[in-house]
Amino acid sequence: MSKRPQFDFAIIRHGQSEANRQNIFTGWRDSPLSDQGVSEARASGRLLKQEGFHFDIAFTSLQSRAIKTLWLVLEEMDLMWIPVRKHWELNERHYGALQGKNKIEAVEKFGAEQVNKWRRGYAVQPPFVALTDPDYPKFDARYAGVPEAMLPRGESLKDVSDRVLPFWLSEILPLVRSGKRVLVAAHGNSLRALLKHLERMSEAEIEAVNIPTGLPKIYTLDADGLAKTTSYVGDPADVQARIQSVANQTKKG
Amino acid sequence: MSKRPQFDFAIIRHGQSEANRQNIFTGWRDSPLSDQGVSEARASGRLLKQEGFHFDIAFTSLQSRAIKTLWLVLEEMDLMWIPVRKHWELNERHYGALQGKNKIEAVEKFGAEQVNKWRRGYAVQPPFVALTDPDYPKFDARYAGVPEAMLPRGESLKDVSDRVLPFWLSEILPLVRSGKRVLVAAHGNSLRALLKHLERMSEAEIEAVNIPTGLPKIYTLDADGLAKTTSYVGDPADVQARIQSVANQTKKG
Repeated sequence: MSKRPQFDFAIIRHGQSEANRQNIFTGWRDSPLSDQGVSEARASGRLLKQEGFHFDIAFTSLQSRAIKTLWLVLEEMDLMWIPVRKHWELNERHYGALQGKNKIEAVEKFGAEQVNKWRRGYAVQPPFVALTDPDYPKFDARYAGVPEAMLPRGESLKDVSDRVLPFWLSEILPLVRSGKRVLVAAHGNSLRALLKHLERMSEAEIEAVNIPTGLPKIYTLDADGLAKTTSYVGDPADVQARIQSVANQTKKG
Repeated sequence: MSKRPQFDFAIIRHGQSEANRQNIFTGWRDSPLSDQGVSEARASGRLLKQEGFHFDIAFTSLQSRAIKTLWLVLEEMDLMWIPVRKHWELNERHYGALQGKNKIEAVEKFGAEQVNKWRRGYAVQPPFVALTDPDYPKFDARYAGVPEAMLPRGESLKDVSDRVLPFWLSEILPLVRSGKRVLVAAHGNSLRALLKHLERMSEAEIEAVNIPTGLPKIYTLDADGLAKTTSYVGDPADVQARIQSVANQTKKG
């Protein structure tokens, strides 16, 4: 057995989804994990177990790809029995009228500059969905408990931050403070919002950050509840390769 | 789409586990689903979806085979996002010092009559495990939150009932009463304890009841919170064959 690692909590972005694989803006649409995504999640679970990690509670979104990732990690860790809390506040960014569109086709239609603004501009919202659009979350039973005024029609990363951070501060951080080892399985943008806060990044800095799929990142926190230390769990060269592959998604092949 | 079925809640016993397949007394030991068990759970999920079922919340035990069964059912139903509550009170009967023993070997060693008493006698406890035995639940991290005085060293079906029923009455029934459609994924004996209560069975009657693995059973309740109607979901001939296969487990092949 390896020595128990020092950490306060961990995050993991869901493994590759079918929509990731097809390079599609997914947002609040559901997309299952691809075979590669399943393998990524299982490998992370095995790695975490091998490195001596234990979690007391886990949080995830209401979206299948994050939930499935969490389930696979917990199964590999023999931790299926820990409490799991699922919350819409941890959902992926709602990509508005871009949802379902291929990222390279979007570049061809709107231009690379506009698409890059939508993808990376901190406060840039995508075109909204109409209130009658099936992508408006009111038509999805899983959001029946969410006040209609809070349902997004399209979100910037700032909008995502405005729901992720209050949730982090009120629901997750107090558990971490009480000594619970927490795992958060979520999405590229809900985790970027959290990471910007924890790692004290500017809006410009977070634009360049890519979180690889299915790779755990651990944190210790300082007295302010911000990152004292952080690192990905895994082989450094593999980590770097996977960060780069996310950055390449809107480049034409 | 088929018409929405009338029901108040549903139970499902976990799909076949590796220990079921090897005919071993498992109790509180963890045993993964066998390939057949995975297929049973997935088939039940598909059937429930096809028949128009929806659940608002699910309960399960702290044991992997019940949790995994629930996860597979929810995945097939596109309901991975509903809340899932895991509680030790829904665990399988603790089989004391019989845990890990083959059922046919136990018959050869102790005689069919004694084994049948242990398996079916309502208030007959198995030989207890010692307080130093790895099968004593104190050594399992998942029970760290359970008061030591409540940790079993071996349970009769009556003992199981003494933890399942208070939990049913205080945690699950009020949700059913409030209109929530509840799914309970649990074990042969925790569900037999519940079924005895709901279907007003005597101790003698419940001895003869076998719950097939991975097959949903639905209930409507009367004003007393007892079964008004109940039925398995599935093809009647298949249901009957699967009930019979559980009854045959201690018969020599």
